Amino acid sequence: MSDGFDQLWADLEPLGRNRTTGGYRRFSWGEADADVRAWFVAAATARGLTVETDRNGNLWAWWGEPGPDAVVTGSHLDSVPDGGAFDGPLGVVSALAAVDELKRRGVRPSRPLAVTVFVEEEGARFGVPCLGTRLLTGAITPERALGLTDADGVTWERAMERAGHDPGRIGADPDLLGRVGVFIELHVEQGTALIHTDSAVGVASSVWPHGRWRMDFSGQGDHAGSTRLADRKDPMLPFAETVLAARAAAEAHDAVATIGKVHVAPNGTNAIPSRVRTWLDARAPDEATLHAVVDHVDAVAKRAASEHSVFHARYEESYTPVVDFDTALRDHIAAVIGADGTPAPVLPTGAGHDAGVLAASVPTAMLFVRNPSGISHAPQEFARPDDCHQGVTALADVLADLLHEKEEHEEHQEQKGQKRQKGQGEKGSP
Amino acid sequence: MSDGFDQLWADLEPLGRNRTTGGYRRFSWGEADADVRAWFVAAATARGLTVETDRNGNLWAWWGEPGPDAVVTGSHLDSVPDGGAFDGPLGVVSALAAVDELKRRGVRPSRPLAVTVFVEEEGARFGVPCLGTRLLTGAITPERALGLTDADGVTWERAMERAGHDPGRIGADPDLLGRVGVFIELHVEQGTALIHTDSAVGVASSVWPHGRWRMDFSGQGDHAGSTRLADRKDPMLPFAETVLAARAAAEAHDAVATIGKVHVAPNGTNAIPSRVRTWLDARAPDEATLHAVVDHVDAVAKRAASEHSVFHARYEESYTPVVDFDTALRDHIAAVIGADGTPAPVLPTGAGHDAGVLAASVPTAMLFVRNPSGISHAPQEFARPDDCHQGVTALADVLADLLHEKEEHEEHQEQKGQKRQKGQGEKGSP
Repeated sequence: MSDGFDQLWADLEPLGRNRTTGGYRRFSWGEADADVRAWFVAAATARGLTVETDRNGNLWAWWGEPGPDAVVTGSHLDSVPDGGAFDGPLGVVSALAAVDELKRRGVRPSRPLAVTVFVEEEGARFGVPCLGTRLLTGAITPERALGLTDADGVTWERAMERAGHDPGRIGADPDLLGRVGVFIELHVEQGTALIHTDSAVGVASSVWPHGRWRMDFSGQGDHAGSTRLADRKDPMLPFAETVLAARAAAEAHDAVATIGKVHVAPNGTNAIPSRVRTWLDARAPDEATLHAVVDHVDAVAKRAASEHSVFHARYEESYTPVVDFDTALRDHIAAVIGADGTPAPVLPTGAGHDAGVLAASVPTAMLFVRNPSGISHAPQEFARPDDCHQGVTALADVLADLLHEKEEHEEHQEQKGQKRQKGQGEKGSP
Repeated sequence: MSDGFDQLWADLEPLGRNRTTGGYRRFSWGEADADVRAWFVAAATARGLTVETDRNGNLWAWWGEPGPDAVVTGSHLDSVPDGGAFDGPLGVVSALAAVDELKRRGVRPSRPLAVTVFVEEEGARFGVPCLGTRLLTGAITPERALGLTDADGVTWERAMERAGHDPGRIGADPDLLGRVGVFIELHVEQGTALIHTDSAVGVASSVWPHGRWRMDFSGQGDHAGSTRLADRKDPMLPFAETVLAARAAAEAHDAVATIGKVHVAPNGTNAIPSRVRTWLDARAPDEATLHAVVDHVDAVAKRAASEHSVFHARYEESYTPVVDFDTALRDHIAAVIGADGTPAPVLPTGAGHDAGVLAASVPTAMLFVRNPSGISHAPQEFARPDDCHQGVTALADVLADLLHEKEEHEEHQEQKGQKRQKGQGEKGSP
């Protein structure tokens, strides 16, 4: 098993990696994205899987005939700017390696099984995360998605078209979604909960509600040397107050809030900016708390902007309510992958995932693989090879169990059907 | 006269203008820079001037033979990002139009006259302003200049080479500098002093000491959702405190301080930044005050960085001491261009100029043309056509006076020489 994983990992690792930073720049529909998609198609095909691209650009590699009540597992291959190697790819590579392991164990796919790669999970290029699953489930309209733009003003529509896909067909796909019986996403942990346990693999309990809010501060560009302080309308000042307010609000509410992205216009040393555009990422244990954090930040931004004669506007770019993963499925999986009768650790996460979007439509669970530093979205993101191999074993165990459960379930249904027939016969209906 | 000015202006105006913002993006050695340089060569050549490129890439259009004790006037054609149409170009266009006016008046260049275009005045691409005159006068070493990089890591050396110039020859040019008898720079005003007077044109008294300091805040990139506040090393937070400290220090010291340029890495919505790089532009009436402002900002930056476990470093990218323009020349010029016996207004400026760099080497003066809003370094930068025409007339008056003064001066020297000869004769020295 570890051979398959290691080879897959070695083949994928160099694609889209920036030599200077050591981080990944795999942005949807770009060159590196085409490379990693081609890698996936080749790896899946080599395993005898049949790869289909859905109308939204997501990849589905089917083991056996595509069909209903499928066991689906996968993740994404896009990255944040200068992201790590594991966030997304670990789930895809582990899924393919788990297929190898299932084959090695002689498992026959009595129920359809698919490995998926979802597009634009990070929202790094077009702003809205989990766009592939949001489109698939109808959580975002095709119209809004088509008009999303990257930093250069290129729309999703144009970018998808340039990459050789038909943007005219995007949108909710209830037929395909209806085939998914259960979805399992394996992911590198993005925190430090597992390092305090003996387990290399844990199970997700919930995803904190979270969202992204864009804030525009529009002032008056002017000369940095000759413009009196009193005459300035400098948008950098309310922006700076907003950064500090976000941190203070997060501290006050036991939440997290981050300002990690800023665009300054014109961005010249000797020019007062005309505009500062920034994005607030906020997450909290519950939605009321999340709204309290965002409202606090917004109030400070408004007040500070007004004090500096700067115009302030806020737009909600994405919002994901709290996700509680299927409790029965979660506890079952924790038992399946636990050791010596002890279930695997169950932990919440502040990170959003395609699994969080899909959980609204289908039974969904997540596995986390231990991250020794907890660092993610940075080149230092890491998981030890041994832990990755344990992740593959755990995922294979879960998939085998779900396929087996299905068989049991089918036998059970068959028995019920026979009973029903018998009963019906007894009732003598026509 | 106004015809010449208007035609020159109309020809130059569209070059390097961004259609979306309406601002200019004329960056040294770029495509737009090549266009405006070609425009200058054509316009100067059409006037019978001989254009030479000096070893640092500055353009000199000579009226008559290049020679010593020349009257030199000019400015620059590069812009800040999305800058205005007037900052720089007004001085160049007015200089060419003043040559037309001098010809119309029948002035014969008894003393060499040159119109100059200095490179990288704004420092918008390579960080150090007035680079052309700093190199010419030896205020910066060729080694340092060659290694300066733009945002994409392209060096001055490489950029100059790509633009078809030999970077191996840059550096101090005492022979050429020795030819400059006097330098006059006409510039759009970048404040609002002249709108409170009846004058369209004023004369500079001094340039505030000023400088640029780059500050790097290096933290740890991480996930915005799953990283606990306590575990973060977020460089955006000390950066924000520094922005507010710059403003507070400027207020406390009656100076100006601006943070208008920021580079965030990786600049992702859902990623805590690994690094925030920013630039402080600070200016004050005197150097002690300037140092007090910068020291205050630096102290806050250091303290805030330390509080967030972020590494902070500061680099002085450029520093220009106070410039007091030649007092006799200034008062003379104010009298020459004054009306009805009242000298033109004399005003200080917070903006740096090539004239400020050259003032350390040669008698130098500046003319300012009224700016109705005071806005500069922004697309809204403006000067009324009537005021621009008055600027050309004033510049022509000054140039004619300097040429005339030279003739008088030469006659005077001749007389003194004759006297000396006579005296020497009387003393009977061998």
